[in-house]
Amino acid sequence: MSDEELMRKFFTADKFVETADIKIVEVNAERAVVSARIRPMHLNATGCVQGGMLYTIADFAFAVLGNFLHPITVTQCGNISYVAAAYTDVITATAVETVRHGHNTVSDVTVADAEGKTVCVCRFNGFVKDTDRDEVFAKFKD
Amino acid sequence: MSDEELMRKFFTADKFVETADIKIVEVNAERAVVSARIRPMHLNATGCVQGGMLYTIADFAFAVLGNFLHPITVTQCGNISYVAAAYTDVITATAVETVRHGHNTVSDVTVADAEGKTVCVCRFNGFVKDTDRDEVFAKFKD
Amino acid sequence: MSDEELMRKFFTADKFVETADIKIVEVNAERAVVSARIRPMHLNATGCVQGGMLYTIADFAFAVLGNFLHPITVTQCGNISYVAAAYTDVITATAVETVRHGHNTVSDVTVADAEGKTVCVCRFNGFVKDTDRDEVFAKFKD
Amino acid sequence: MSDEELMRKFFTADKFVETADIKIVEVNAERAVVSARIRPMHLNATGCVQGGMLYTIADFAFAVLGNFLHPITVTQCGNISYVAAAYTDVITATAVETVRHGHNTVSDVTVADAEGKTVCVCRFNGFVKDTDRDEVFAKFKD
Repeated sequence: MSDEELMRKFFTADKFVETADIKIVEVNAERAVVSARIRPMHLNATGCVQGGMLYTIADFAFAVLGNFLHPITVTQCGNISYVAAAYTDVITATAVETVRHGHNTVSDVTVADAEGKTVCVCRFNGFVKDTDRDEVFAKFKD
Repeated sequence: MSDEELMRKFFTADKFVETADIKIVEVNAERAVVSARIRPMHLNATGCVQGGMLYTIADFAFAVLGNFLHPITVTQCGNISYVAAAYTDVITATAVETVRHGHNTVSDVTVADAEGKTVCVCRFNGFVKDTDRDEVFAKFKD
Repeated sequence: MSDEELMRKFFTADKFVETADIKIVEVNAERAVVSARIRPMHLNATGCVQGGMLYTIADFAFAVLGNFLHPITVTQCGNISYVAAAYTDVITATAVETVRHGHNTVSDVTVADAEGKTVCVCRFNGFVKDTDRDEVFAKFKD
Repeated sequence: MSDEELMRKFFTADKFVETADIKIVEVNAERAVVSARIRPMHLNATGCVQGGMLYTIADFAFAVLGNFLHPITVTQCGNISYVAAAYTDVITATAVETVRHGHNTVSDVTVADAEGKTVCVCRFNGFVKDTDRDEVFAKFKD
């Protein structure tokens, strides 16, 4: 099983991500990309993608990247700046690690609409636990 | 119709909040309180309330308070610090305005579990638009 | 030597705080208060207190509180929202701990001008190290 | 007078930056770089560059970039994540605009030590005023 397949299997258990219908598109050492096909359930009272949904997709991109690069990473802080409303039918979140030092990791996530326009930008601080990667994923490898 | 009923009606159109099954408990000049009965759909891969769900409930408490106090308020930035995992069956978010000056409003939101233990703390920056409150809510008043 | 005197002695070695001429007013289990008498050196190009100075006084209030409550606390993240310009001759920063859980502490700091008007609000995330308070301060006690 | 010279002249009036002895290295459409030669006055109680100083240099890099790209830009929020202690004799802050949309601009600033190691990463939200660039800088052009 590839590391990418492992990530998909690992995150199957995240039921809020399943509820929000967010999918892993790609994950590797450079970045994690996740996306969602927008449906009425994702919208706010003004008809664009709701702010909590935008945060949720960004946070998930960070979770996928962090746990791919150095499991287990737990989110300590999240910061989101809303830039523009999203009305299109697909949104995509791309996470890139900005810096890693000791137990600390900082990643930036950009959420874009179907035309590639930036909808919001996020920064996450994670704490990398002293766990062994192989041990964490052993039960998912079968 | 009371202002609190008006808020409930106004936010009926927020479909992501409906999807996450978050309800307005109380809103007045002092605070907004919203809550969710936790079900499997709200959990992450480790069985506690998922980070995006925690942000979503906090953001909604801010949206209810901001739009109650001075509609229309749009969220510019959100900041969340995760403090402890939530395993209980109800979580509650309470928003209080910290400071308002001109077009800017800053509010703090605390998310607590059923025992009142703080799960995460959030701070939101909003921009208050030059719209007329009565005009905004006129169509919801019937 | 009281704990408050100990804090003053401990922070004498902070030379940037000395450069910015910030003084400890009060520190106890409830809060830390620090202040600065504003002089031309604290101003920006438009004649009000400079943004870096506002952050510096807030960060110092957090450092004093955190190290009073549970030394050694190191700052992980700082967040500042600028609310209004400060033109008065004294600014004061008041830090209050919002939540403490395990190694994590979150505190809020409000910076006010001489009339008590809020100039900016800050939130700091600190990591509490596994150090012994008495050991840390032993050398300052003589 | 070049735009870069104009920026230097404009920011001569920032007295806190002068106090902290921070200099503009470079500013153009891609980035702003500012730096400081570290002296005892910049250090904290443990002998490394103080947290307020790190924020101040980052905030100044953002101010230089923002006002170069679209004067007048005022800082609304600042966010700093401390990554590693800085003990070297020079620190440098590099600001790059992440996204601009309407009145909003978001920029990222990286502060590095003399070896290029990242010391902290910052994100700033600015509000771009409806002012005319030429008008703002007219008085500095002679």
